[in-house]
Amino acid sequence: MNDSTKTILLTGFEPFGGSQTNPSQLVALALDGKGVGRSQIKSAVLPVDRTGGPQALLEKMALYHPAAVVCLGEASRRTVVSVEKIAVNWMDFRIPDNQGEQLCDQMIDPEGPAAYFSTLPVREICMEILSGGIPAKISMSAGTFLCNQVFYTGLHSLATQSLVVPMGFIHLPSLPEQASRVSSPIASMSLETSVRAVEIALDVIQKRI
Amino acid sequence: MNDSTKTILLTGFEPFGGSQTNPSQLVALALDGKGVGRSQIKSAVLPVDRTGGPQALLEKMALYHPAAVVCLGEASRRTVVSVEKIAVNWMDFRIPDNQGEQLCDQMIDPEGPAAYFSTLPVREICMEILSGGIPAKISMSAGTFLCNQVFYTGLHSLATQSLVVPMGFIHLPSLPEQASRVSSPIASMSLETSVRAVEIALDVIQKRI
Amino acid sequence: MNDSTKTILLTGFEPFGGSQTNPSQLVALALDGKGVGRSQIKSAVLPVDRTGGPQALLEKMALYHPAAVVCLGEASRRTVVSVEKIAVNWMDFRIPDNQGEQLCDQMIDPEGPAAYFSTLPVREICMEILSGGIPAKISMSAGTFLCNQVFYTGLHSLATQSLVVPMGFIHLPSLPEQASRVSSPIASMSLETSVRAVEIALDVIQKRI
Amino acid sequence: MNDSTKTILLTGFEPFGGSQTNPSQLVALALDGKGVGRSQIKSAVLPVDRTGGPQALLEKMALYHPAAVVCLGEASRRTVVSVEKIAVNWMDFRIPDNQGEQLCDQMIDPEGPAAYFSTLPVREICMEILSGGIPAKISMSAGTFLCNQVFYTGLHSLATQSLVVPMGFIHLPSLPEQASRVSSPIASMSLETSVRAVEIALDVIQKRI
Repeated sequence: MNDSTKTILLTGFEPFGGSQTNPSQLVALALDGKGVGRSQIKSAVLPVDRTGGPQALLEKMALYHPAAVVCLGEASRRTVVSVEKIAVNWMDFRIPDNQGEQLCDQMIDPEGPAAYFSTLPVREICMEILSGGIPAKISMSAGTFLCNQVFYTGLHSLATQSLVVPMGFIHLPSLPEQASRVSSPIASMSLETSVRAVEIALDVIQKRI
Repeated sequence: MNDSTKTILLTGFEPFGGSQTNPSQLVALALDGKGVGRSQIKSAVLPVDRTGGPQALLEKMALYHPAAVVCLGEASRRTVVSVEKIAVNWMDFRIPDNQGEQLCDQMIDPEGPAAYFSTLPVREICMEILSGGIPAKISMSAGTFLCNQVFYTGLHSLATQSLVVPMGFIHLPSLPEQASRVSSPIASMSLETSVRAVEIALDVIQKRI
Repeated sequence: MNDSTKTILLTGFEPFGGSQTNPSQLVALALDGKGVGRSQIKSAVLPVDRTGGPQALLEKMALYHPAAVVCLGEASRRTVVSVEKIAVNWMDFRIPDNQGEQLCDQMIDPEGPAAYFSTLPVREICMEILSGGIPAKISMSAGTFLCNQVFYTGLHSLATQSLVVPMGFIHLPSLPEQASRVSSPIASMSLETSVRAVEIALDVIQKRI
Repeated sequence: MNDSTKTILLTGFEPFGGSQTNPSQLVALALDGKGVGRSQIKSAVLPVDRTGGPQALLEKMALYHPAAVVCLGEASRRTVVSVEKIAVNWMDFRIPDNQGEQLCDQMIDPEGPAAYFSTLPVREICMEILSGGIPAKISMSAGTFLCNQVFYTGLHSLATQSLVVPMGFIHLPSLPEQASRVSSPIASMSLETSVRAVEIALDVIQKRI
């Protein structure tokens, strides 16, 4: 790695909710160590744990001093790649996390603002993924579970440190094998397609850092 | 081709409704000429034309004397592979066919029965596709457009000739590139996944012929 | 009742699947005894029971010699009134009936045809309900549970007796109170709106008998 | 009106997007002047106009000095009453407003924070509507059109004036007559049901003011 190489931190989550896999984990690991422009991807898999998840993200951010942060998550009820616009200071877990904790109507940080916008070029990322022939949309809600919590925590940490590091979140649909195992099979996206969507996003991002 | 080689006729449709492509066409062509067990696949692409579509199917059936017939079609509003259970003697086109004809509330054959069941092992095909890690379901309606018309026409032709040839229909979701070009992007399935689903179906079928 | 008064048999179903109520039951009872044109409505509530349901329908048909038969059912996953076009000779119960029986992949009558079309003026009924300001559609599948079973049984009975009696099936969405009690609240239709939709349908039908 | 009577400002929107009606307008007008506990409802219908809409809200707030503000809007693609949790500083109009303006990716107030939480008891309102037998949910996005714009503008105005006035937004499904006029009929909620849901919400609110 020469002096001008920058790090993009790319995170996924471990499986949760009874699933054996998680597309965000597989996509993050598939791109670990890869180069994109003059940047290099460092991947991490976060636990689905209200305490351990955000903590692991902050540790990786402290470790790598990344020039950009892209967090990935699974959205099993979405049919297309969702580029999240906003992280909200709210937790209301639909299911328990992997430690069995299920928070209801709680702020992530009682001192923090209601929300932060993604600092990624959300519109451009969405347009480029679509141009690449992959269905995508801008989403105005990353939910109220770990995905949103980690997204908010990262942005809040950067803001309180006055660090100008582009950071955002992308939700991926379930994998075909996951979609085939629920009682009423649902929409899915292949791992190859999701990997390609994230590569396109990272390519947009690396041009800005 | 030795004496015991049997032919499985596999059809798809050309693009329609303003689309540039059709997953059923691409899947049919991808498998053309391939062997499955002791059978060989012969593929054909049918026109989306109320007259030409069914006629092309019947011509191919007359030409190949297939041991089984599997028709494929695109169902852009479905999220999983749909193994059709029943063909209905009814046409009510939501959009015009590629000749600009839009039929409303008309029987396919005024002398024919109300419906024919698929003569494929629908349940087993669906279960095997699911076991292969691909989301699928049994569908009780193939719609009222060309897909259902071709499906009914084939079964009616076999029935009136007293030919015992397994025949059925499988609907495939849109391809990612199609799903990315509509104004509100929709669910999709990659070509690779759809090809694999149809291969699994054909493998189930070839064991029965 | 003078000599020219005709009877329209209107059936609903008792609650099932853990619900305390059923819009089809409430609509049928709300219209029991009412006149529509020169016809009078006789309502019956059928058990959700693979044996008792069809049997109760046939008994009521034998008792009343109706000039038309309209069966109602609940379709909790539909958002609009669904005028069913076709009854299929197939049972594949998604949930057990109220006797705990759950049939899988079985014909209703192994001697019967694959399907019967509704003998109601389906298109006109749908158009009139829409003109009345109520969302409705023609449906090509009444499912594979009791609703379809009763629908098929009635049409098969009339056909085998060569009786020309218009008969059909209309699916109604859940009531608001039902929709409010599921874990993720769903679409609903008020009882008043469903009653009105069925009144409109019966008015179309009575003009034909 | 005696000294202790408080005013609750209840707003709806005029029709937009080619529709002839708007449930939020009808509900607001149906409740205008009514009493709820010791409070009285004052209703207003806001124009669907990026300039005129927020301005009309602020004028009514200045005029009535309400003790609480509840804005209503139509969400034609939602199937249940949606109690909005958060207003976002963002506009991205899916369709033009009634003046023909269609904003894309713009902040409502470049000086304002990313978002404000509703200051209504969102959870309690949702639970009470459900207890009343009406399907409802908490929503994490009020969209990026006029509804969200008016919601944000009101909360921002109160915040900048340091006024502690509970304010929130409730989205209502389409009316049956609207749902019956689109090309593929959609879910709806009757006016009576929507009025009742809003009455329940107002009753929760008046106990807090």
